[in-house]
Amino acid sequence: MKNQQIIIDQLPTGKLSAQHYRLQDSDIGHPGPGEILVRTEAFLVAAGSRAGLQGSASYAGAPTTGIVMGGTGVGIVVESSDAGFAPGDKVVCSTGWQRYSMHAANALQKIPAEIDAIHYLGPLGVNGLTAYFGLLKVGQPEAGETVMVSAAAGSVGHLVGQMAKIRGCQVIGIAGQDHKCELLVDQLGFDAAVNYKQGDYRSALKEATPNGVDVYFDNTGGFVLGSALFRLNVNGRIACCGVVSQYDTDAPEPGPKGIPGLLVNKRIRMQGFLVFDYLALYAAARKEISGWLDSGQLTSMVDEVKGIESAPAAFVDLLAGGNVGTRVVLVE
Amino acid sequence: MKNQQIIIDQLPTGKLSAQHYRLQDSDIGHPGPGEILVRTEAFLVAAGSRAGLQGSASYAGAPTTGIVMGGTGVGIVVESSDAGFAPGDKVVCSTGWQRYSMHAANALQKIPAEIDAIHYLGPLGVNGLTAYFGLLKVGQPEAGETVMVSAAAGSVGHLVGQMAKIRGCQVIGIAGQDHKCELLVDQLGFDAAVNYKQGDYRSALKEATPNGVDVYFDNTGGFVLGSALFRLNVNGRIACCGVVSQYDTDAPEPGPKGIPGLLVNKRIRMQGFLVFDYLALYAAARKEISGWLDSGQLTSMVDEVKGIESAPAAFVDLLAGGNVGTRVVLVE
Repeated sequence: MKNQQIIIDQLPTGKLSAQHYRLQDSDIGHPGPGEILVRTEAFLVAAGSRAGLQGSASYAGAPTTGIVMGGTGVGIVVESSDAGFAPGDKVVCSTGWQRYSMHAANALQKIPAEIDAIHYLGPLGVNGLTAYFGLLKVGQPEAGETVMVSAAAGSVGHLVGQMAKIRGCQVIGIAGQDHKCELLVDQLGFDAAVNYKQGDYRSALKEATPNGVDVYFDNTGGFVLGSALFRLNVNGRIACCGVVSQYDTDAPEPGPKGIPGLLVNKRIRMQGFLVFDYLALYAAARKEISGWLDSGQLTSMVDEVKGIESAPAAFVDLLAGGNVGTRVVLVE
Repeated sequence: MKNQQIIIDQLPTGKLSAQHYRLQDSDIGHPGPGEILVRTEAFLVAAGSRAGLQGSASYAGAPTTGIVMGGTGVGIVVESSDAGFAPGDKVVCSTGWQRYSMHAANALQKIPAEIDAIHYLGPLGVNGLTAYFGLLKVGQPEAGETVMVSAAAGSVGHLVGQMAKIRGCQVIGIAGQDHKCELLVDQLGFDAAVNYKQGDYRSALKEATPNGVDVYFDNTGGFVLGSALFRLNVNGRIACCGVVSQYDTDAPEPGPKGIPGLLVNKRIRMQGFLVFDYLALYAAARKEISGWLDSGQLTSMVDEVKGIESAPAAFVDLLAGGNVGTRVVLVE
């Protein structure tokens, strides 16, 4: 039984390319006491992973070469030396970008049989929980308020906007392509969507937010964050989730103009968060999100890419805005 | 009876100079029904007023020429057509930079006879309340945490640091001159003070904050805000009070690097505030601050300038860091 792995071959200087990775075959052993061997069915390709290849200080860890690219995946137990897991169990864990991975029991979570495993990479996984806690605990929108979200057709953004609609808000999504904007409004119920690459973006944003913005859910930083600052109302809130506009470079831009001046004038609260801080609340959140999925109030968009060897190119493409919804690689 | 007024003659492009103002004599009438005439004894020269001469969007209002320069002052009622005020009453109000001013009764606040009126420009006035609410309501420091404050020898900063000491925190002040740093430690009980203009500022800051920073009270924005971001601990808080580094220019810098990236990684909360939002709590705050003044736990440093005609130069000098403590102009 051979493993297949995507290895970080070189750290990028400037933009990431697929050539920074290599595909490697390796041996995979049998589980030692308490260990479980998992065969990956699908893994997540997530923009936040790019931060782990950049600079030094990041929640994603320090950049290193020669290791398997990290990431969350879902899979099947193929061999177990732990009483809690048996072959055939469906699990979610840090598979990384590889066909097989070995885990301690406490690093695995079983997926209930009645739930589509892919949901654990989307609305019931890190992306969904990030949307949920970032919006509700950090952004704290009230019904009737206006919520703006960037990278709105992305893995987190498309869920944020729908959750804000469920909570009775007006929702404006920002994306970089017209077809994404159309999809947000036509299929996901956003009230408006604005393409930030269009020439008259700022006036289009103004028109789309006649009552200003109360909560801005920031997945991008940079230019779009700057535009949100000008539309935020007094006592507005910014939930700082990610900085995708600044990951794929070794020279991140300075922060937008108006920081901290506009924060003072408008008493804005800008707060960074990581989903892991809400671990104790995951189960309750998953229950609520499952209810929304079951009732059809929440739609999970999944962007499937086939074959482990496709992962590096799929990641580079995602950083350039190529995905709609949650991008997953099906290992096959 | 003649009034003397400092008029905004031109709006500054680039740096402010005393030549942007002119001194004007004018007539002063008698109070109409419900009005009160006040003779200014002293008025505040405050960095935040510079924001009112800059750009368009500011809590200090839109920039205008031909009007009296605004500001808080203390004075004596000289003539009153309102039953609530009598000649000789000491009051605090928006005198502006002038010898006499006319007010409606609801725009005046009486100063209790037993209190030094100048305290109403310092610890019991807008500066003191700004320090109090910004630190305690926005920064929310716990005893044992480390509090960093910029413009620490300024009107707000010198009070913030002392209040943080009263609450049991470690306190580090940032200032731009060595004599200010010495005063903060020797006379006001700060644990350390660092001159941000020294060549090895960043390493000196690191040395002065061995446990990192839990609350940063930001009076400056810009470079010092950037340095604080790197010292902040996980779950750190930034109380955004003012942006003195960016007022005296018509080309404010972009925000510091690391915004929003470091906010995400370290789950930092950055929150702007205006003291006026806490109006309902002023009385209780003044009571607590008065107690600290009486017990000697809080020292008010006042930087007196004599003569109304000195105000423009005193303001320009304050923007360049010339003051220690609260700068007031004694009208005489």
